[in-house]
Amino acid sequence: MARIVQKYGGSSVADLQLITSVARRAIAAKNAGHEVVVVLSAMKGETDRLLKMAREACPTPDPRETDNLLSTGEQVSTALFALVCHGLGETVKSFLGFQAGVMTDKAHGRARILNVNPARLRTELSKGRLAAVAGFQGINANDDITTLGRGGSDTTAVALAAALKADVCEIYTDVDGIYTTDPHVCDKARKIDRISYEEMLEMASLGAKVMEIRSVELGMNHGVKIHVRHARSQAPGTIICEEDDDMEKAPVRGVTVSVNEARITLLKVPDRPGVAASILSLISSAGIVVDMIIQNKSVSPADQSDPDQSWTDFSFTVPLADYRQALELMTAAGREIGAQEVVGDDHIAKVSIVGAGMRNHTGVAALMFQTLADKKINIAMISTSEIKISCIIEKDYAELSVRALHEAFQLDQVDGGRQTKV
Amino acid sequence: MARIVQKYGGSSVADLQLITSVARRAIAAKNAGHEVVVVLSAMKGETDRLLKMAREACPTPDPRETDNLLSTGEQVSTALFALVCHGLGETVKSFLGFQAGVMTDKAHGRARILNVNPARLRTELSKGRLAAVAGFQGINANDDITTLGRGGSDTTAVALAAALKADVCEIYTDVDGIYTTDPHVCDKARKIDRISYEEMLEMASLGAKVMEIRSVELGMNHGVKIHVRHARSQAPGTIICEEDDDMEKAPVRGVTVSVNEARITLLKVPDRPGVAASILSLISSAGIVVDMIIQNKSVSPADQSDPDQSWTDFSFTVPLADYRQALELMTAAGREIGAQEVVGDDHIAKVSIVGAGMRNHTGVAALMFQTLADKKINIAMISTSEIKISCIIEKDYAELSVRALHEAFQLDQVDGGRQTKV
Repeated sequence: MARIVQKYGGSSVADLQLITSVARRAIAAKNAGHEVVVVLSAMKGETDRLLKMAREACPTPDPRETDNLLSTGEQVSTALFALVCHGLGETVKSFLGFQAGVMTDKAHGRARILNVNPARLRTELSKGRLAAVAGFQGINANDDITTLGRGGSDTTAVALAAALKADVCEIYTDVDGIYTTDPHVCDKARKIDRISYEEMLEMASLGAKVMEIRSVELGMNHGVKIHVRHARSQAPGTIICEEDDDMEKAPVRGVTVSVNEARITLLKVPDRPGVAASILSLISSAGIVVDMIIQNKSVSPADQSDPDQSWTDFSFTVPLADYRQALELMTAAGREIGAQEVVGDDHIAKVSIVGAGMRNHTGVAALMFQTLADKKINIAMISTSEIKISCIIEKDYAELSVRALHEAFQLDQVDGGRQTKV
Repeated sequence: MARIVQKYGGSSVADLQLITSVARRAIAAKNAGHEVVVVLSAMKGETDRLLKMAREACPTPDPRETDNLLSTGEQVSTALFALVCHGLGETVKSFLGFQAGVMTDKAHGRARILNVNPARLRTELSKGRLAAVAGFQGINANDDITTLGRGGSDTTAVALAAALKADVCEIYTDVDGIYTTDPHVCDKARKIDRISYEEMLEMASLGAKVMEIRSVELGMNHGVKIHVRHARSQAPGTIICEEDDDMEKAPVRGVTVSVNEARITLLKVPDRPGVAASILSLISSAGIVVDMIIQNKSVSPADQSDPDQSWTDFSFTVPLADYRQALELMTAAGREIGAQEVVGDDHIAKVSIVGAGMRNHTGVAALMFQTLADKKINIAMISTSEIKISCIIEKDYAELSVRALHEAFQLDQVDGGRQTKV
């Protein structure tokens, strides 16, 4: 007998027929002897509908009031789930965030879970009953309803799984699991059976859309085994867990690409201490998040007139949505800082390879650069972490680069074809 | 400066434009120096939409889960109201039932308010802010959401007005106030300026649809002055309060009619002690509510064969919806009880006159019966209370009887035309 938290996303509860189908699935798990807590998202489209109403009511909706409005989406789907279960002969209670003991901080619209007291859920489980919980919502110390932001229902599910010491947190969605890359981009993409939290974090933050970062982090911090799987298939999906010997041995686990960034470069900035800080503090005080940062000292012979003066080129990337604002800020600031020129480029892509195995393999980076070079793809920026390498390239080559890297690292084969020769 | 609870019904918050209009009204009251708490119903049609979903999910929806579902209706309208206020430059917080301190018993779907602790509302008022409260909902001792049943938002408003010791509870609706009778039936119907709780209770229970009985009772028990008025008019409506000298002096205040009842008669029942009790206990154990009851001893000469045996005719009325079931029960029971015959009639109307003044006037009943007789309307049953007289008549004459009584008691004139001669 296992204790299982099952989370069903909006597309799995889009109408009563689909809700009936997930209810049967949850009941089947219970009847197989498991203890089951079900977490539900709002019915597909409902959150957007409510958000549209909020914006019609007020152009910049108050976050607290928006949370009161949005949280009804999960309240409706969870109550309907419980009613459908009753119709199937199963007594199931639905619980709102506060009833499930989901305590958050006060950051409306993007609240963080502070702690979980699932006493009422434990009571239901001890009575041999399923329990249904509205995802995405909690309550703060003021007794106000909060919502957890994008992917919040995943976070609810993982947090409950941690608090209940569940054996597994099953995330049901409309894909089979985590893939080596986006199957829409590369038809050789292959489902990954097991992936470590760290790898999944890099995959998620780099543009794989299945799981939100926060819930993976939460799972990692509490050692919650997460099983991402298809709501309408019995086939196993992808297990996200601690790195272990059962995992594939290939140095690279997946390829991701993001086209939601833009690059800004300040050319020939006087190379003084504090110049990077002054540039970035301007950006961050505008609420813009910087991703990659590269500083590269210029040593062009034309600058030798004053041997005491040196210059540097400074580049960074920002979300595409913030590009215009960031470029304006930098164009204004560039003059004061003494930059020769400020240039921007919003026609870029970030292609990345991810894999815990690259820690123990040399030559991974070289194979990546060579593969891109072979396709005549120019690399504008490079950044690396212990388990990933990212390259900024021209946007037009985004998909070509993914396919080329997927093939080069033999990701269509288990263990990278018995470990890619790198 | 007054403390005011304003309640807006579903038709007054049916869309964002209407919500904006009631928001302006509430803000204007605040800007005039008053302390204002606003209670909102769900947007028109929303509760029905949710209820339909519940029934599609499960033919006999579980009451607790249905409450979780239905309570979202008021949550949405109240959050939207607060957002609209923000858009108008007014900081307003919305409060769910539990946040407004509305504690109820555990009877899901028809919960009664046990007590109200409006601490958070007091805080808002003390900060000079409006507060918006979701009507129709509360929380029970299990921390479960409850709903208060039909007219529940009125009940919320009156209960909050009592707890906050408000000067007045304004019930905004889509009619101008309480009328002497239904204006759709009688074009001479006149708006009543002031009416006592007792009269309003009789009017409400007899078919006037503007206010639910429970909220009037609650107002009476706590001495809350209730002002029923039109949401889109500045004209005063009807004040419901303690009987006082400012009220009209006419013996009759209004005429009501109900066509939602049916009559069942057991003919020639052996007149033994306990026979009425045995009939009515059968009906009540089937969960059917009996309204009028009449027992009338038969003294027909044909029954003189056994001078020790006497008989009685026994009639009662039940809601039309329960008529078939009640008739079947009585047909079966009639044989055992020894009734000669059981007959039913679902083609009846109950026409009533109501007025606290009839306590001090003789001849009111006589004028009522004479008026009906003049129109050749036969009276099948009569029942009276201190301040009302009801007659069961044939349904076809329902509207004619209302018009005739309205005219006979001169209800189109203030004070019944300086007190109807009765």
